[in-house]
Amino acid sequence: MKIVVLGAGRVGNAMARDLNSEGKWDVEVADLSKKSLAAVQEYGIKTRCIDLGGKAGIKKAVANADLVIGALPGFMGFESVKSVISLKKNIVDISFFPEDPMALDEMAKKNGVTCVVDAGIAPGCSNLIAGRMSALLDSIENFSCLVGGLPVARSWPYEYKAPFSPIDVIEEYIRPARLVRDGRVIELPALTEPEYVEFSGIGTLEAFNTDGLRTLIKTVKARNMAEKTMRYPGHIEKMRILRETGFFSYEPVKAGGTTIRPIDLTTKLLFPMWSFAEGEADMTVMKVVVEGVKKGKKIRYTYDMLDWADSENNVSSMARTTGYTATAVARLFIKGGLKKKGVLPLEMVGKDLESYLFIMSELGKRGVVFEESIE
Amino acid sequence: MKIVVLGAGRVGNAMARDLNSEGKWDVEVADLSKKSLAAVQEYGIKTRCIDLGGKAGIKKAVANADLVIGALPGFMGFESVKSVISLKKNIVDISFFPEDPMALDEMAKKNGVTCVVDAGIAPGCSNLIAGRMSALLDSIENFSCLVGGLPVARSWPYEYKAPFSPIDVIEEYIRPARLVRDGRVIELPALTEPEYVEFSGIGTLEAFNTDGLRTLIKTVKARNMAEKTMRYPGHIEKMRILRETGFFSYEPVKAGGTTIRPIDLTTKLLFPMWSFAEGEADMTVMKVVVEGVKKGKKIRYTYDMLDWADSENNVSSMARTTGYTATAVARLFIKGGLKKKGVLPLEMVGKDLESYLFIMSELGKRGVVFEESIE
Repeated sequence: MKIVVLGAGRVGNAMARDLNSEGKWDVEVADLSKKSLAAVQEYGIKTRCIDLGGKAGIKKAVANADLVIGALPGFMGFESVKSVISLKKNIVDISFFPEDPMALDEMAKKNGVTCVVDAGIAPGCSNLIAGRMSALLDSIENFSCLVGGLPVARSWPYEYKAPFSPIDVIEEYIRPARLVRDGRVIELPALTEPEYVEFSGIGTLEAFNTDGLRTLIKTVKARNMAEKTMRYPGHIEKMRILRETGFFSYEPVKAGGTTIRPIDLTTKLLFPMWSFAEGEADMTVMKVVVEGVKKGKKIRYTYDMLDWADSENNVSSMARTTGYTATAVARLFIKGGLKKKGVLPLEMVGKDLESYLFIMSELGKRGVVFEESIE
Repeated sequence: MKIVVLGAGRVGNAMARDLNSEGKWDVEVADLSKKSLAAVQEYGIKTRCIDLGGKAGIKKAVANADLVIGALPGFMGFESVKSVISLKKNIVDISFFPEDPMALDEMAKKNGVTCVVDAGIAPGCSNLIAGRMSALLDSIENFSCLVGGLPVARSWPYEYKAPFSPIDVIEEYIRPARLVRDGRVIELPALTEPEYVEFSGIGTLEAFNTDGLRTLIKTVKARNMAEKTMRYPGHIEKMRILRETGFFSYEPVKAGGTTIRPIDLTTKLLFPMWSFAEGEADMTVMKVVVEGVKKGKKIRYTYDMLDWADSENNVSSMARTTGYTATAVARLFIKGGLKKKGVLPLEMVGKDLESYLFIMSELGKRGVVFEESIE
């Protein structure tokens, strides 16, 4: 079994190490950055320096693969997954690209490959739970997913660090959020409907609408469905001020004898403020609440997950929660538990109890635990 | 008596109208903006369209003047006052230029003219009071001046409107504040030492260090001396965040394929948000507290001033408080109460009880009242 990981970033690194530690598979990581590859080589993992920004590079990288793990940045995601499918290779992807993944479904089916997309934490585990619930319950009244990736240390003024480029974070602050309310899909501006949520050991976080439901909007039937991102209280207000003042605008502005898109300056200024320092700890907080009817009775399932960076092994919580979900899916595929062909978001996987339990169990072995409570 | 007002902005307009209403002086306003001049002509006041951005224009404008009132923007202030002095004309100036006005003292004395600088509200009335106190008390322990010009309506997010260009306001937020502490001049960053101050009928305002003491640092002896600017609570924090992120920086940054000074984009974006709408009301709040010793006894003088825009006559509170201080000084000069030659900040005028009372009385007639309380 040859596994090729595309991308040697933080998450790619963590996934390659996790899969390689099994000792029974041939794991190889491809990336253009020699620095990133060197960090993988340290763990005795094979690497190949390849430019993955085109089909030729992807082809070279995945030629002998039985399974591909996609861990490229979002803007490269769709094209790379499309290339992998066209090359008739199976893939588990975490790139969270903005395009609709179902656009690749037909080709994946035709080519007889399995393509699991959005196989991270959220989207990812949230979809897995939604799939499980839709199989378990007669009907879903409310589905809500609150999720936040945060630095442990809260530094003024933003109390936030981004594990990826600030422009991707700011996208979450400007892209309208699609949600389901009273059975209909509606759109609300991002950063709206803020609410405080209390977490034991963490304190109060502030949740706000973001566009995170993705495939769930079409695949899961629920009366109300919402995804919210969480930050430390106060962050939203600061982002709303910057947005309202125009600092997030893509519209070119004439100023100081030149013309510039304010977003370009803003991301440039925010980048150093939002970067995790070497070894700086992050954490991931998630709460999924599903209310519905089971055998005629009202029931509520709550899933709480709190994960901390593994500083000993230099794996961020972001990489743990995202990466270990994807490697659990990869293991499920390898052991023959994912026979379906086509594009599969995790809600489709989660509908199968055995698959659901296997993924949750693999996550649990690595310390990523969803505590379930039923009322 | 021919009086020439340089500058037909909001304050220039108010001063020209106030002086012209006397009916006994020949008042003329010079400016380059025909629109601004038209607003003055409405009141039957003579105007001349002249570019005042150089000595030639100033010379043309003040040729026949007995007294000049300077109401140009800060960046034009020093050069215009210098030109007026070199032309041997008396001037009362409110331009609040950044350069040291005392640099012109020698020339003014040599040319036998009186030049009153910073003849506005603060600097201006604050200096007048400081001068009065330094004459009245044996020694001054503490001198503090809190002052703020604010919109009456508080609109999210900044709850602030600027009666002048945002770049001049932001200057107050970045220029280090000089103050006197324990008899020594110290410098603190702007926006520091915020404190809440309660005003009857207004509520809570937030005061922070700004560089407003100017000439007082050298001319008045006090153990502690500070000037603070006031805004609605929360404004400072927002300014600190923008400053900390780099949005106020003059250092060119490469972004979006070009190079720009962040301050240029920031002022461009803030300008529309910080502009007073036509007819929008402002107000001015000021509190001067002077503690010292008089005849061996500790004594505290407090001066409270609260002024509102005159919407009936379309005169902003900024124009009222600044302009009517300057016209009171002009009247003092015209009636022969200002015989001294050279550059005179108002603390030098305020040392003379009669001059002090005259200016306060003229302000009072126009509704700008300093309530004095003594403890």
